[in-house]
Amino acid sequence: MSQKAELNDVLAYIDRKAEKTVAGLQELCRQPSVSTTHTGIEEMAALVKRRLEETGFQATLHRTPGHPIVTGFLPGKAKKTLLFYNHYDVQPAEPLSEWASPPFEARVVDGAVIARGSTDNKGNIVSRLAAFEAFLAVRGELPCDVKYIIEGEEEVGSPSLESFVLANKPLLAAEGCVWEDNTTREDIPILALGNKGLCYLELACRTANVDFHSSNGQIYENAAWRLVWALSTMKDEKENIKVEGFFDDIRPLSPKEEGLVDKMKPYNFAGRARKFELRGNLLGLSDRELTRRHLTAPSFNIAGFDAGYTGEGVKTIVSGRARAKVDCRLVVDQDPEKILACVRRHLDRRGFTDIEARLLFRSLPAKSDPDAGIVRACEAASRRLYGVDPIINPFGNGSTPTWIVLRHLGIPLASTGVGRITSRTHSANENLKVADLIDGAKWMAAIAEEFASL
Amino acid sequence: MSQKAELNDVLAYIDRKAEKTVAGLQELCRQPSVSTTHTGIEEMAALVKRRLEETGFQATLHRTPGHPIVTGFLPGKAKKTLLFYNHYDVQPAEPLSEWASPPFEARVVDGAVIARGSTDNKGNIVSRLAAFEAFLAVRGELPCDVKYIIEGEEEVGSPSLESFVLANKPLLAAEGCVWEDNTTREDIPILALGNKGLCYLELACRTANVDFHSSNGQIYENAAWRLVWALSTMKDEKENIKVEGFFDDIRPLSPKEEGLVDKMKPYNFAGRARKFELRGNLLGLSDRELTRRHLTAPSFNIAGFDAGYTGEGVKTIVSGRARAKVDCRLVVDQDPEKILACVRRHLDRRGFTDIEARLLFRSLPAKSDPDAGIVRACEAASRRLYGVDPIINPFGNGSTPTWIVLRHLGIPLASTGVGRITSRTHSANENLKVADLIDGAKWMAAIAEEFASL
Repeated sequence: MSQKAELNDVLAYIDRKAEKTVAGLQELCRQPSVSTTHTGIEEMAALVKRRLEETGFQATLHRTPGHPIVTGFLPGKAKKTLLFYNHYDVQPAEPLSEWASPPFEARVVDGAVIARGSTDNKGNIVSRLAAFEAFLAVRGELPCDVKYIIEGEEEVGSPSLESFVLANKPLLAAEGCVWEDNTTREDIPILALGNKGLCYLELACRTANVDFHSSNGQIYENAAWRLVWALSTMKDEKENIKVEGFFDDIRPLSPKEEGLVDKMKPYNFAGRARKFELRGNLLGLSDRELTRRHLTAPSFNIAGFDAGYTGEGVKTIVSGRARAKVDCRLVVDQDPEKILACVRRHLDRRGFTDIEARLLFRSLPAKSDPDAGIVRACEAASRRLYGVDPIINPFGNGSTPTWIVLRHLGIPLASTGVGRITSRTHSANENLKVADLIDGAKWMAAIAEEFASL
Repeated sequence: MSQKAELNDVLAYIDRKAEKTVAGLQELCRQPSVSTTHTGIEEMAALVKRRLEETGFQATLHRTPGHPIVTGFLPGKAKKTLLFYNHYDVQPAEPLSEWASPPFEARVVDGAVIARGSTDNKGNIVSRLAAFEAFLAVRGELPCDVKYIIEGEEEVGSPSLESFVLANKPLLAAEGCVWEDNTTREDIPILALGNKGLCYLELACRTANVDFHSSNGQIYENAAWRLVWALSTMKDEKENIKVEGFFDDIRPLSPKEEGLVDKMKPYNFAGRARKFELRGNLLGLSDRELTRRHLTAPSFNIAGFDAGYTGEGVKTIVSGRARAKVDCRLVVDQDPEKILACVRRHLDRRGFTDIEARLLFRSLPAKSDPDAGIVRACEAASRRLYGVDPIINPFGNGSTPTWIVLRHLGIPLASTGVGRITSRTHSANENLKVADLIDGAKWMAAIAEEFASL
């Protein structure tokens, strides 16, 4: 009980320092760091390193083929290590005209910091640093060893992260990891314990080096038709993916995972249908079935199709070239390279040897054991702070690079943070409520405390 | 024989006046008349009317909802009427940088007039006027009554022609018609006796009012997939068109037409395969089979397909909207409106009621009786001038508006003129050899002469 009393002191300190914490967030947000355009990256990496050092971390800025990665280490009381992952880069702010307040001024409007990066992901960095600062001020030490990795390419697919992690395993070794955020959150914390994989393919067909006048439509192969025919063999109208081998490596859910899926609140598709003018629920499935499908099933999606004339009105050509983007979200243990091989074999067997399939991007699916220490720590922290169990998405919906930590380092993780559905991450008027920033710091403090005491 | 001697005088007059004829072509070409941009249209219509009047025609400029139509009439010796169709509008000249000589300067370079419209279609207008001028100079009269219709919207699909023709049937009544040109020609004349129809559809599918993030690919309908599935039911990989009713109205070829098809020289697909980097002949068909297919079969072509992200690299979305352009070339007596109805019924029967099908453009297939007087006149003229039978394409390959004359006026026609494959119509450096212009005038004189004497 004495330790819990002490945590209350830490939480009270976080409240007292709220103004400084907000100022710290504003400082980070006022430094643009757009990874797509390489804007302000070096300045931001240096700033993050300085902030880690000011908090007491031993920090290092690592050069990579892309943007620098900053790591930090600060020993604590318990001899176990908790790793935090964040990223200092942000999405572009455009279109600027849609912002109510300039994206890199970080003004506080109606109790929220309006800025690109305010939630994704600088608010999460700042909330964590505020928690560490509170421990150090109140107790003189962190509850356990803490490592930090902050990269600068998350918004462009983390191209440097995997090789960095593989080359620095001892530096990053830990027993648990808190990942960057989880951008849906209602009144109780939501944890995501992994990520879907992504196999992003480009299928290209060329039947001639020109587009022919369509008065020759009877006598020339049309690349658009070939791609239509090829795609139509890959997924049928009932949404059945027909690529042989696509499902081979899917691991069944554990009873614990089944239980977690059952506990997820079903999405409200009637509301979505109104908002997005949907024809109705996919395949007529119920909200619960769709929710389960979203959590557990892979996808085979056409992200783009481009052939021939795509403007307004009439142009009469035989498409000599056609291209489709196909993205497959993968579940454990599907492998993007094997999916590519399955697609290639599928095409070849059906005579579509002329259709090129290229892997443009890949990430692997991965998930933590829901009984891992970091998950139990989050559960205990949720009960302590909020009096409820957290919501646990055992697989994650996105394709973040948690797999690099899960697979290459073998560290179980939970992704959780300050994000809300109203945070407008990636959009104009991205924002973070000051109350959520401070609450997020307490949440991180409680997780670290519980993790240390497991 | 005396009349034939007289025709030689007419032909000799055409030779003597070659310089004036070239100057007359240059005058027309130096007046831009781009129908797409409405550039110079009024000036060009007035100029065409003046040139008809200078030749001796009674000419009228008719207002339409679009560009003016100019008609002319000049009585001749025989009491039968030959109608000539041309158009005074041209394609845009862009890209200007590709022209060796400015497109509206009409310079003579290496014995050819280089100008937008030099062949298509002003060279044809001028060659016909030169023939009439020669008859009038040598004989004081034309061999028969001649009517002329010159429109200004051919390059944009002749939107005003049908209603004009329907409202002016007596004005245009004739026993035969010489259509604008035939743009493939080797050493002997080629006649086209009709046109394919065109049913140009836009198929549009919308599954949501947004594109979703593709991490939701498992749970939202994808418009691109729906359109792929729908299209794949319409034509199979063996190029079989599966839309019920599509073939219902096709009229079998007459024995005479079969004979004409057999006489067509087969296309050289090995050469085309090299030039255009084709995979090989469509369906492995022979040159002769492909040539027959081109002449006699309808098509069901995807002219464009557009959905989701079509740029370079990766964007991860579920396409909420997809659109395809489908153009069907039709043969006698397929009807574009009925084809649209077939497509609609086909979609509905397969559950694609949400896919919208709109008719963006239509023209009807039509063909002349190959025994018609105008065809026999052309045959006789070819034998007289060149000592050979002409090549006759009994159906035409393109979708020109010959059907308006064939169907609404009931006038059989042959399309023939000064065009060559090297004329580069619609492209930069469109050109007409002076020798072909003068030869074209003689060819028109011979046709009129033979038509009058049938």
